[in-house]
Amino acid sequence: MNKRIIVKVLGYILLILALGMVIPLLIAISKQQYDVMPFVLSIGITAFTGAGMSQIPIKGKTKIKTRDGLAIVTLGWLLASAFGALPFYISGSIPSYVDAFFETVSGFTTTGATIINDIEVLPMGILFWRSFTHWIGGMGILVVAVAILPMMGTGGFHVFKAESPGPVADRIVPRIKDTAKILYATYIIISFAEFILLLIGGMTPFESAVHTFATLGTGGFSTRNASIGGFNNAYIYIVISVFMMLSGTNFSLYYDVYKGKWRDVLRNSELKFYVGIIVATVLAITINMNMDLYHNWFESFQHAFFQVTSIITTTGYTSFDYEQWTTFSKAILFMLMFVGGSAGSTGGSIKVVRILALIKLVRREFTRILHPRSVVAVKLNNQAVPENVLLNIASFFMLYILIFVFGTMLISLEGISMLSAGSAVAATLGNIGPGFDFVGPTNTYSEFSNAGKLLLSFFMLLGRLELFTVLALFSPKFWKQ
Amino acid sequence: MNKRIIVKVLGYILLILALGMVIPLLIAISKQQYDVMPFVLSIGITAFTGAGMSQIPIKGKTKIKTRDGLAIVTLGWLLASAFGALPFYISGSIPSYVDAFFETVSGFTTTGATIINDIEVLPMGILFWRSFTHWIGGMGILVVAVAILPMMGTGGFHVFKAESPGPVADRIVPRIKDTAKILYATYIIISFAEFILLLIGGMTPFESAVHTFATLGTGGFSTRNASIGGFNNAYIYIVISVFMMLSGTNFSLYYDVYKGKWRDVLRNSELKFYVGIIVATVLAITINMNMDLYHNWFESFQHAFFQVTSIITTTGYTSFDYEQWTTFSKAILFMLMFVGGSAGSTGGSIKVVRILALIKLVRREFTRILHPRSVVAVKLNNQAVPENVLLNIASFFMLYILIFVFGTMLISLEGISMLSAGSAVAATLGNIGPGFDFVGPTNTYSEFSNAGKLLLSFFMLLGRLELFTVLALFSPKFWKQ
Repeated sequence: MNKRIIVKVLGYILLILALGMVIPLLIAISKQQYDVMPFVLSIGITAFTGAGMSQIPIKGKTKIKTRDGLAIVTLGWLLASAFGALPFYISGSIPSYVDAFFETVSGFTTTGATIINDIEVLPMGILFWRSFTHWIGGMGILVVAVAILPMMGTGGFHVFKAESPGPVADRIVPRIKDTAKILYATYIIISFAEFILLLIGGMTPFESAVHTFATLGTGGFSTRNASIGGFNNAYIYIVISVFMMLSGTNFSLYYDVYKGKWRDVLRNSELKFYVGIIVATVLAITINMNMDLYHNWFESFQHAFFQVTSIITTTGYTSFDYEQWTTFSKAILFMLMFVGGSAGSTGGSIKVVRILALIKLVRREFTRILHPRSVVAVKLNNQAVPENVLLNIASFFMLYILIFVFGTMLISLEGISMLSAGSAVAATLGNIGPGFDFVGPTNTYSEFSNAGKLLLSFFMLLGRLELFTVLALFSPKFWKQ
Repeated sequence: MNKRIIVKVLGYILLILALGMVIPLLIAISKQQYDVMPFVLSIGITAFTGAGMSQIPIKGKTKIKTRDGLAIVTLGWLLASAFGALPFYISGSIPSYVDAFFETVSGFTTTGATIINDIEVLPMGILFWRSFTHWIGGMGILVVAVAILPMMGTGGFHVFKAESPGPVADRIVPRIKDTAKILYATYIIISFAEFILLLIGGMTPFESAVHTFATLGTGGFSTRNASIGGFNNAYIYIVISVFMMLSGTNFSLYYDVYKGKWRDVLRNSELKFYVGIIVATVLAITINMNMDLYHNWFESFQHAFFQVTSIITTTGYTSFDYEQWTTFSKAILFMLMFVGGSAGSTGGSIKVVRILALIKLVRREFTRILHPRSVVAVKLNNQAVPENVLLNIASFFMLYILIFVFGTMLISLEGISMLSAGSAVAATLGNIGPGFDFVGPTNTYSEFSNAGKLLLSFFMLLGRLELFTVLALFSPKFWKQ
């Protein structure tokens, strides 16, 4: 491992982070609230540390290898969270540093799980920063770094690979810097569209911005304690639902649309499956729920559509206290927690394309039972998926379930119910946010012990960085030269 | 498909079933209880139907192909359950035929889930038959058929393969008939040993027999409403725990022991992992529980050991109402529901060897991240597992989880809690028996609707026949020639 270059890159990440805090500082100044000095201090500490680290001299070649890439990503997210927590802590908005760290990890990983019981009393700069971490984390602070830092050269690919969501990186434009720019351009355009539509719906510019950041990053932080339900506005429900869906879609498809490749987009296996799951589950819940909880089909539909898109994209916004739903509808939401967004989107969890590939694998086994000597490839988008990629996907699935199971066992030591423990782990590992019971939509994560909060923060990081990246650092082989 | 031969074989299965009912009939006669005539009637109906079906003339060759084998296994288990339910129904012990069918499927699949709220009032012939179905089902009624019916010839292999538990059939002696005989000899010897040890512990010969059948088949039917806890006897807890462990071990290992291959046995990957899981979870629960529920370490240990072996082997006996345990200990039990016994044992669920293979697959992926071009085989017992077997195991795992998830959604329509629905599906699909909450150890399955009971019966069959065998019949390809 090249420790010097790791430190240097981490320094640049902190500098970018400090730059990111300037926007909430400007808001704090314009609103003249008490969070001005906390932001100044946080920026100072972060920028000073970053500048110091970035000055480390590099000897010889500057090539970043796989190990360096893995270390940079994991440590980069950890450092960004540790320093990103400063405004919350210094301002006193979150009096405990562990809580502030949890909240920031939750922000950057676009989880949206909160330990703040009353967010409506917080100053606007703090609320803006909280939601802005979603937006930065959504596409990966490191993609910015890759696009900006020319020194990383080809080594940037390892970082990008370790951080980008989804099993296959084949659709990526060969030149990483260009890809990062295209992705960010798309991201900004869609963000702008949602911002405008929310303004039209009656939100203030500040509220529109906060909710746009959280939607695009599929995060889930809001300005209201009752989340989007606090607005009680069908137009806003539908707009946010649609943009959550868009944010859970593979961003490279937007590039295809831009290039006029409509056919490819409409034939995309993952997109069809993703839309199919949403349509099926929204229908099932709408029909199941209209009978007892809502006044009419449209009311039932709007909450079903909102909650399904919120959970499958791993945003975690709520328009209604879904704990009042029937067990059937709740079970559907719980299941969706394990589906997640598309590859190459800002959504977390297992991801649609992996579930689809595994279902196709199961189908192939049925063929093999009847025709043991048949050779049939599992296809996605009319292309055969190599067997080793299938095994990689199967490993990911198994590892995800293993972490979920052991995580639930550990978290159950907090003395909460099994559903609470299971859904807390599913909601943090899948970067969703709210779960059921003890961590239901009307509760927060504030009641966990510090050990519990740190463990759940670890699950959020694990989930956001797709398990292997983080866990590789714990394997003995990683440290052998 | 060769429909005539399927009907003929099914006829023989019914004849064997009728023969099996003669033993409880003899008990009923000796005890002079009201179940004598019901058994006479049941035997008459079953034997008459079986004899009629077995008389169907076969034209030309009698070769059984894969499709025929799959159909025979699934239909054989269904028919055996349908006719095996007659004594319960005719005697009035179970007034509803759906309930009687559920109880019999639960018996043959060695699940041990019951709809009877008071078993202590039932006549002894009925109680004997109920438990005897575990013993028959444990090793597969069809293995008997394979061993007995010479007409099946090489075709018997397809039946054996479709029915035998576990992913790999490599340890099977080439000649099926010999294998079946060896397995049954082992089965009978171990049964006899447990029977004697339970007698020594103070059980009546009747009680010893009933509990031996249920232990060896990893079923779980008892003679007491409080299950084994009703005996309140540490000796009995330990004896049954040890025999549950033995029944959850790969039976081919006993053949190796008999052949003096001690080294192979002690080095067996699956056995080591199986024992390792039991030791680790018993320790964790013993330590976790002693703090609040039991008087001393030994009491804590005996219930931990009993409940862990009962759940991992999918027996489902209870020595204590584990719903009073901490969430941590309950979460461990819930996890064990998805582990199950060893391949080639009478235990159900996913099975130890599959979990082990998938964990090794995950470990290999970590190596691949650091050394992308490395070629490392996943090994079990020092032998490389072929990649297509790994994909088959991964498919099984995915399919198991899919059925669990969709099953939970469907069962939650009964209006019970999520934990109840989830554990009911896990407990039937894994052939365990009791679950949590609504289906906890002090409850029965009697409160489900008929639709719910039939669906859960289907899950029991799916689990016992390892998913693919039953589901293949639902695939359109199965019916295409």
